[in-house]
Amino acid sequence: RCRPMANATTDELEKVIHERLDVGKVTAMTRAGTSGWAVMHRATTDTGKRLFIKVSREDASMFQGEAQGLSAMFDTQTIRVPEVFQYGQLSSVQGSYIIMEALDLSPIYDQGELGRQLARLHLADPVLPEAHQGRFGFSIDNTIGATPQPNGWMEDWVSFFRERRLKHQLLLTGDSGLIDRGNRLCLRLNDLFDDIKDDIKPSLLHGDLWSGNISGEYAAPVIFDPACYYGHHEADFGMSWCGGFASGFWEGYHDLIPRAPRFEQRQKLYQLYHFLNHYNLFGGGYYGMADLILDQLLKELQ
Amino acid sequence: RCRPMANATTDELEKVIHERLDVGKVTAMTRAGTSGWAVMHRATTDTGKRLFIKVSREDASMFQGEAQGLSAMFDTQTIRVPEVFQYGQLSSVQGSYIIMEALDLSPIYDQGELGRQLARLHLADPVLPEAHQGRFGFSIDNTIGATPQPNGWMEDWVSFFRERRLKHQLLLTGDSGLIDRGNRLCLRLNDLFDDIKDDIKPSLLHGDLWSGNISGEYAAPVIFDPACYYGHHEADFGMSWCGGFASGFWEGYHDLIPRAPRFEQRQKLYQLYHFLNHYNLFGGGYYGMADLILDQLLKELQ
Ligand SMILES: Nc1ncnc2c1ncn2[C@@H]1O[C@H](COP(=O)(O)OP(=O)(O)O)[C@@H](O)[C@H]1O
Ligand SMILES: Nc1ncnc2c1ncn2[C@@H]1O[C@H](COP(=O)(O)OP(=O)(O)O)[C@@H](O)[C@H]1O
Repeated sequence: RCRPMANATTDELEKVIHERLDVGKVTAMTRAGTSGWAVMHRATTDTGKRLFIKVSREDASMFQGEAQGLSAMFDTQTIRVPEVFQYGQLSSVQGSYIIMEALDLSPIYDQGELGRQLARLHLADPVLPEAHQGRFGFSIDNTIGATPQPNGWMEDWVSFFRERRLKHQLLLTGDSGLIDRGNRLCLRLNDLFDDIKDDIKPSLLHGDLWSGNISGEYAAPVIFDPACYYGHHEADFGMSWCGGFASGFWEGYHDLIPRAPRFEQRQKLYQLYHFLNHYNLFGGGYYGMADLILDQLLKELQ
Repeated sequence: RCRPMANATTDELEKVIHERLDVGKVTAMTRAGTSGWAVMHRATTDTGKRLFIKVSREDASMFQGEAQGLSAMFDTQTIRVPEVFQYGQLSSVQGSYIIMEALDLSPIYDQGELGRQLARLHLADPVLPEAHQGRFGFSIDNTIGATPQPNGWMEDWVSFFRERRLKHQLLLTGDSGLIDRGNRLCLRLNDLFDDIKDDIKPSLLHGDLWSGNISGEYAAPVIFDPACYYGHHEADFGMSWCGGFASGFWEGYHDLIPRAPRFEQRQKLYQLYHFLNHYNLFGGGYYGMADLILDQLLKELQ
């Protein structure tokens, strides 16, 4: 559809790789599919490096979020994620790119290993100074799907989740029924954390952990395409309704991080965020799910 | 944990492959991960064949369902699925196996292509005589996850879905609240099909189409691990809440099979079956989802 543009992109990517990355010259570059908003490329260089490149017509801010999230997880050395080499604006055409290590993905992985490695990610000592000091948030705002996800640092987890997560998505729905009940839920939020509120430490979260963002590489688990921030570790299970997690996963995870009281109830809360986001992104049936969880939580907290 | 057993299994598999499949002798056999209920193996033979083998401690009936489903889809030549070579009971240890073509899976695939190929699967002329004559069901009962899925042939789709799908899962919940309301829904089911009831033809369905059962092979879509039967094509979207389908998928599908009136409402009905099944398999949060959809449908049909 857009041949000259695509060629300009490829030419520019080859130049970027050659001039700004210490990996040699590109010897082959192929398209490797598209997703909703990006075109994937694979490149090989004359030093034998294999790169995976995502290109989008948007500006570089989404890739900045992805790059900083991947790097933060990579630096913990707890779970396999692709190493990021660079991201930036394209100059020859409108758009942006992220260049990372190519993974050798194949869909089989050890579920128990994923559980243990995810727990280790959540237990890792925070690198960012704000999180190290106990605050919740991230170095930059990022996106969850295409929805903006604000990450301004806050001292208190419950306040963070209320202001930067729930209220933010509620407002985006523009639906007064959801907003009213959501606000009522926000007033009762502390009750869900009674048993654990002094134990909540900032954990680096993947932030969008569903089966499409988990894969295997030689049977070891890999995760990618994150929406990272520092938060309560249980919040990483907000997408577990689409995680494909088998019992081995939960055993592995809870071997390292025991299940706290009212885990199931808070899981609903954390799912509510993603259902609201799915409603904001895709509409339709997800309204009902958000609506339901809101009702259930309000009833339980009466 | 079970070394001697595993070796007996491998030895027997090598023998089965050599003696009963026309693919030569096994030159290498490696473990390739486990899932909730099966151990995966890969084998290469001296004629260069690459095989994928699932082994379970259960009897062969689950693999019989999988084998017949995969073969039925394979025979339509509409969408890529692995070719099945054999399944059977193990004799050296308790358990069973299925041997199929090894796929070269990698997670990227063309969503539009998946939509079009799935539509072609749904449009393919049924091979089984009962379905060719317009009946709904399958050659054998199979399983959806680990839940039995009865497939006895019936003339009428709405009756089939009521008796063999909804009522079956409702009873398994043992929950009188769900059962009562489910029965009320069953009485109103025809209303959801008013506009289309004369157009419903038996389509071969994958039956468990979620993102974990879809992958790519050199960018082309592949589907596997089915729970096949002949049914209303829209029923294949009962797992779409976890399908990862982007707009390109829907465009591709509806290019070949236009969206019928009340598609969204029936999608809820078809999701209800899978939410009930998830509740029966995993409990917990899925109760609420089944409960919600039941309520919504009952309200809409008043
Ligand atoms: N570093 C990588 N190497 C190889 N394949 C990758 C890599 N990162 C992602 N992929 C593949 O590309 C697909 C799309 O990538 P993803 O980051 O999830 O894209 P999007 O942000 O568009 O959802 C993934 O499902 C995965 O299969
Ligand atoms: N024919 C095949 N070749 C290669 N890999 C396969 C094949 N079939 C399945 N797989 C891989 O094995 C994984 C588990 O297989 P699946 O049939 O879904 O198992 P289960 O029935 O236990 O869920 C799949 O996610 C897929 O990655």
